Formats: sequence, structure tokens, C-alpha cells
Amino acid sequence: MRLISISLFLCAALGAALDAATADLIVSAGKVVTMDGQRRVIENGAVAVVKGRIVAVGPKAEIDRAYTAARRIDRPTAILTPGLVNAHAHAPMALLRGIADDRDLDDWLRNFIFPAEAKNVNEEFVRVGTRLAVLEMMQGGITTYADMYYYEHAIADETRKAGMRGVLGQTIIGFPAPDYKTPKEALAATERYILAFKNDALITPSVAPHAIYTNSAETLTAARELANKYGVPYLIHVSETKKEQVDAAAAHKMSPTQYLESLGALTGRTVMAHMVWADAADLAVSKKREAGLVHCPSSNTKLASGVAPVPAMLKEGLRVGLGTDGPAGSNNDESLFEEMDLAAKLAKVTTMDPKTLPAQAVFEMATLGGARALTMEKEIGSLEPGKRADLIAVSTQSAHAQPAHDPYSMLVFALKSSDVTDVVIEGRITVENRRALTLNEAEVLRQAAAIRAKVDASLK
Amino acid sequence: MRLISISLFLCAALGAALDAATADLIVSAGKVVTMDGQRRVIENGAVAVVKGRIVAVGPKAEIDRAYTAARRIDRPTAILTPGLVNAHAHAPMALLRGIADDRDLDDWLRNFIFPAEAKNVNEEFVRVGTRLAVLEMMQGGITTYADMYYYEHAIADETRKAGMRGVLGQTIIGFPAPDYKTPKEALAATERYILAFKNDALITPSVAPHAIYTNSAETLTAARELANKYGVPYLIHVSETKKEQVDAAAAHKMSPTQYLESLGALTGRTVMAHMVWADAADLAVSKKREAGLVHCPSSNTKLASGVAPVPAMLKEGLRVGLGTDGPAGSNNDESLFEEMDLAAKLAKVTTMDPKTLPAQAVFEMATLGGARALTMEKEIGSLEPGKRADLIAVSTQSAHAQPAHDPYSMLVFALKSSDVTDVVIEGRITVENRRALTLNEAEVLRQAAAIRAKVDASLK
Repeated sequence: MRLISISLFLCAALGAALDAATADLIVSAGKVVTMDGQRRVIENGAVAVVKGRIVAVGPKAEIDRAYTAARRIDRPTAILTPGLVNAHAHAPMALLRGIADDRDLDDWLRNFIFPAEAKNVNEEFVRVGTRLAVLEMMQGGITTYADMYYYEHAIADETRKAGMRGVLGQTIIGFPAPDYKTPKEALAATERYILAFKNDALITPSVAPHAIYTNSAETLTAARELANKYGVPYLIHVSETKKEQVDAAAAHKMSPTQYLESLGALTGRTVMAHMVWADAADLAVSKKREAGLVHCPSSNTKLASGVAPVPAMLKEGLRVGLGTDGPAGSNNDESLFEEMDLAAKLAKVTTMDPKTLPAQAVFEMATLGGARALTMEKEIGSLEPGKRADLIAVSTQSAHAQPAHDPYSMLVFALKSSDVTDVVIEGRITVENRRALTLNEAEVLRQAAAIRAKVDASLK
Repeated sequence: MRLISISLFLCAALGAALDAATADLIVSAGKVVTMDGQRRVIENGAVAVVKGRIVAVGPKAEIDRAYTAARRIDRPTAILTPGLVNAHAHAPMALLRGIADDRDLDDWLRNFIFPAEAKNVNEEFVRVGTRLAVLEMMQGGITTYADMYYYEHAIADETRKAGMRGVLGQTIIGFPAPDYKTPKEALAATERYILAFKNDALITPSVAPHAIYTNSAETLTAARELANKYGVPYLIHVSETKKEQVDAAAAHKMSPTQYLESLGALTGRTVMAHMVWADAADLAVSKKREAGLVHCPSSNTKLASGVAPVPAMLKEGLRVGLGTDGPAGSNNDESLFEEMDLAAKLAKVTTMDPKTLPAQAVFEMATLGGARALTMEKEIGSLEPGKRADLIAVSTQSAHAQPAHDPYSMLVFALKSSDVTDVVIEGRITVENRRALTLNEAEVLRQAAAIRAKVDASLK
């Protein structure tokens, strides 16, 4: 990479006509928001890609002198950014979108979600639901998502086919699930799943014990051992509701985070979703263990769980990403643009300080922060030579985005998922001019409607 | 209207081939969310329009038997709803979009907004800014907006030309403004403006004293007298920030609402924006005076003003609408879909009850509630025979909106401004298939960019 930078520099400095190297793809845009170490925003910039990796980022004129490419995407008025990272999702629940809103969590889970899942979730459901969610996420500029659901090997297979990057956690839960009947069965299957996908360029297979209140200490510990055996992430819901805190205090005399720490369950790659009720001591443990934390503002407000202490997390230098959570009542969509906007506004109003969580910090959570939360910051989250080529172009040519101004402010407060025009993941164009290339949109929507009709009938 | 209903009934009952009447326009859709007295949602419904008014709403088959129309919009998979009502805006500030984010209100106003306005706001600025904002609002399904700004006669002229409905308040403020140098001058000009537009089908000219802290008691009273002389609305910011409460208590020994009441300034059509810090006594006064209240969740969170007591307002049966506020740092866009989503989530998390402010109640705030806040519920806010034909079609054919479910839930939690395909205002199609028909989009964006370049230069 150093060599390329130097040759670009020489080329620009001397105006010499060096022989151009060959790239697989060049993407250029009016502004390139790199999120690199200097947080450079390059006017009329471009990114060159070779074999799924970024090889150069710089002014378009320089990139064009240094590289030729068979495939190009040129968007002179768009903003080019790293692909967004959705650090907490339950993709197949897209099929249960809006199945029951405006209800108490307990009513929602017991009377709608659990019955709907028990009656309907099978491998076919999961495959169609994943295609639907991946389509929505890709069209909205998400290039990596972290997932916790059932039949995760099928989710991984569909995600890979669609060309999407995923950190995909097989659920381990202490009651009979749609896929496996016992945690032991689930753990054994998870190991087979890890072995099948562990060398995949797009898929990071993961272990996902649901929560401390749905798993025994033995299961939580066994899941950690399995994760560490293969160096894969351990995804878990932590401190989502006040009830979880109260119950943990009653059962274990400590917070959920402290309980996990006491079990040795935080010794390795860990992604803790929600952390709404985390206190300073919990954040200190998270820091010590370098755990990733995921803020899910739509879910936490819609389900009235509370507001996570994001400013404190960032002040402590923790690894904090953003997540949509599932779209079945806790959101009900999968737009990281909306999560950015809401995260900023919530942080400001809860601290009664409009300076809290400025746009750039929020955009960082949606990109490099999410990458750090998933311990993937060396691979994704910014546009830098050597990183995987995950990038998106966002149109600014609309009434809601004009006049143009600070790009971070535009990305967080004005631009929408619907403004994303092009998506590249691992160097492959998956969305071009708003059209999905790796999924058949009409077919996916048709399949989703057909399955939902069955779900609705099953609940009558 | 009664006659039409009976004839429709007879027609359906007897299967008779009555001679079809002629409508100017028929709009049909997969679902019609009427917001009528019975809150009917009609499957495969349609609306017939004659001379800018709705003449019939019912099943498409019945409407098609009863009417023929030269113009039709048929959207078999869309949701047809009343046009959205943005009950608090500052349209021309679209040109100042994102001019300064993440700052204290005082810093933002004194160092950015006021200098930018003093140096740049003239009639041309206001005209271009209005075109930009109206374009954004119309494309996002807003058919009526309430505005408070300078040169309001020019805003009214542009709004009318674009075919948009507006309740447009000329600002009265106790310091030299871009248009008028004294409140007295402004009041005189406002009367001329009212006279010029008072019989307009689209424009409701209004009087807009900025706030109690920027106007003398004499001005607040004179503005009320002027409003009542012509029966037009009195638009004012009330209880937006805690500072306003504290200052009112110090200066007047009462709340801003009580102060206005003590001046007799609430005796007539009144629209009070924000009401973040309103207490039970303030709400009681609002009820007694039948004042309209406008909740602006994006602005109130982004500027860290606080969260208005919306559940209490609705419980008291008050007239409550939703507003975007201006897009220059307090939002930064003008999407009522986002305001709906945020209003619901904020109400849930601040009450720690997910049942608070369910989707249908939120959608009502964005339509009939806004109409009631503007005292226009007999004219707009629902799809009913006799009302003005303001309606929108919203596409459901996207990954984020499928599978289809409860239409209120979809409208509030999943659908976006970008899903609006068609807009009809006063019976005129202003947006068709997402394309604005009454404004030249490319030209508006170009003009906006040119003015913003001047604004940015003026601040250097």
C-alpha cells in the first residue's frame, strides 16, 4: 500500500505518465468520506478495487492516472462512503414485520412472536426472510450485518449468495427452538456450521447465546468455549430491559454484564446488543474485555426499553456500533440512516445538550464503530487501501438533500436509505442505480407475501 | 353527498346500470385509509373528485359504476390516504439546511441563523426557498403546511403557484426583520397580505407573532386583533425551551400560555407550536380556547429542547398536529413520515410504555389532527365527500414495506416519504409517479445551490 501511495504522489508531483495498473473496479464520486485515520473527505475522489480489496483512495484524477478498470461507477454528485454496518439484527423476522405493534414486550413475545415462530419458522422461512432483509439492507447501504436467529447456516448460505457480508450467530437458547431442541444440540450444530463457513470471505460464523435469562450458566460457558475454540464472535443480548436488571440482581446479585464476567463468558470476541441499563461498572468491564456494544435506538424506544448511555460509552472509548434489531415490532424496518438520525436526536434530548453526539460521531458508529464492535476494524469500516472493498454511493440530488452542506450532517440528518444508489461488497457490485443485482426483487417480495399469508392464517 | 351515498347503495344493491356521473379525477388504490368518522379502511377503494372536492369514497367497483373520469390514477398495490398536514414549518429556511448542527440554540441562532438571515434573506431568497421546501414536502406526501417566516406574501404566491395548500403566517417580531423594520410596519403589511389572499382556495393568510419573548404585550394584542378582524389563524411559538419558561416566570410570574391568555391573545384561531414545557394548567387553557398545538419531535430532540407531553394533550382531547419545524439545523428535513415514527417512539420511551401513542393515533396527528390544529377539519384531514381533494398514494412495493400488514403501522413505522408516488391537492395532480408536475425539480435544485453559495460566502 505504501508503494501505491508513493507512486501516486510521484505521479501527481512530476506529472509523469506512469503506466497505469489494472483494477477490477473504480468508483468515483463528488465527495469521498473515507473515515480513515485523518477522517479525510476527498472532493472528486475515487476508490480503486482489486480482487475484493481497496488498493487506492484519492482524488479521481490521480486514481484515473494510476489505474484503468474494466468496470466503473462514476457518480459526480454523490457521496461515496464506507458501507454501513448493522451490528444487531434478526434478518428473517422481516417476514413478521409489524406483526404486532404498540404492545407490552411480554404480550408481544408470548402472544405473537413466539407462537408465530413456533408454528412457522423452518429453513424455508429463514431463507426467504433472509433474502427479504438482505435486499432491504443492501438497498439501504448496509454492507455488513450481525445476526442472531435460527437455522443460521441457511441464513449464511443466503447471505453469501446475495453477496452480503454477515457476522451470523446461531442462536443457543434454553428451550426447544424451531431448529434445535436443546442447547447441547444447538451447540453441536453450531460447531458444524462454524466449520462449514470459517474460511468464507463474506461470512463470519458466530455463536449466539440468546441472553443470560434464557440460558443456564453451563450453556453460556460452553458457548464461550466454542466461540474461543475457533476465534469467532459471541453475540448476546445484554441489559435490554429494566426487568432483566432486576431479575439478574435477584438471581445473581449482580448486573447481567457482571454475571457474564463472573462466568468468564467475556474472554474473547463479544458483541453485546442493547446495553440500555448498563452502568459505569458494566462499561468498565466492557472496556477491559474489549467487548463490542450495539446501540439499537429504534428498538429501545419503540419497545420502551429505555435509552442506552451512548455518550458515556463513547467517552470511555468503547467499541460502539448501531443496530436495527429485528423488524417485527421492534422497529419496523432495517434502515441504518434512520438509526443514525434517531441515535443523535435521542442522545441530545436525553442529555439536554444539542452538542452531544455530533453527526460525525454518529456516522462513525454506523461504519468504523460497527466494525470495531464486531472486531473487524482491520477489514471493514473505512475506505483505506488494504481493506475489503465495501462501499456505497449516496445521491444528493433531491429536494431533501439540497443545498449540499457538511457531508456528515447530510448523511446523518438529511439523507435516507432511499438515496443509496450503488453498493459494492467485497468488490462486487450488488446494487447499481438502485437496482439489486444479486437478488430478484419482485420474486423476493412475492415469496415474502406468500409466507406471510401462511403466518397470518396460522395465528387465527 | 347524502344523495350520492344512497345512489351508490342502490346501484350496488340492485346491480342496476345507472347513468354514470362525470368526475374530474378518480384515484383508486389497494387500500384507502379514509380517516373518516368510522376510520374506514376500504380494500380496493377509490375516491372521485369534482371541482377540487371529494364527491365519493368507496369500493372501486362502486365508484367506477357511478362515475366516469377523464383523468385517473390507479395504484392497485398502494395505500391511498389523506394528504399529510405539516402544522409548523419555516419553508424558506430549506436554503439554510444544515448550516450549523450540533450547537447550543443560542450559538446556532446568534452566530449562524440570524447573521445568515440578516445578510441574505430577501424576496428572491424566500421565493426560491419556498419552491425548494414545497417540492420536498409535496414529494413526501405533505399537502398542507403551516408556515412562519418573512415576506410571507411571496411565500403565499409561490405556494399557490406550486398548487400546495398553506396556512402562511407573516412574522411579527420586535426587532428589525429582513422584511419590515418594526412590528407596526409588519402588522400593516400583514393586513394588506390578508386582503390579497383571503379568498384563495389554497392559501389561508395568517398572522404570526414570533413568540412572547420577542414581542411586546402591545404587539401580541394587536396581532390578535388583526387575526380576529379577518378570522385568520394566529401562529406562535410557545414553551419551546426551558429558558422560555424560566424567563416568563421571572418577567410575568406565569407560563407563556397563561401570559398569552392574560393578554386575551388566545381568543380566536390559535396555533401554538412546540408546547414542550406546557403543564396541565396550560393544556386546560388550550382546551378552553380550542387552540391548536403542534408537536415537533425532530426539532425538539435535535435542539435538545425537551419532549412535549403529547399523551396528555391527546388524553385531554386537544387539537394536536405534527410539524417538521425549519430544516436549518432543527431537523434537517421536512418529512412527516419521520416525524410520525419519531413521535411514536419518543412517546413510548418517555412514558416507558410501548402502548403509548399507537400507530393509528400518530397517523391521525399527521392528518386530521393537523387539520384540527389549524381549525380546518371541515375542509381537510380525511377522505370524505365534501372535503377538499387532498390525497396521496403511497407505494408498498419495496423490501422495507413487505410483507404488508396493518396500514397504520406501515404508514407510521415502515413507509417513508420516498414511498409517496402521487399527490393530489385541491383536485389537481401535483406529483405523479414520484415526478413533480408543478415545479421543475432540476431548476429548483440549481437555484437553491446558487443561493446557498452566496449564503456560505456571506458568512466567511
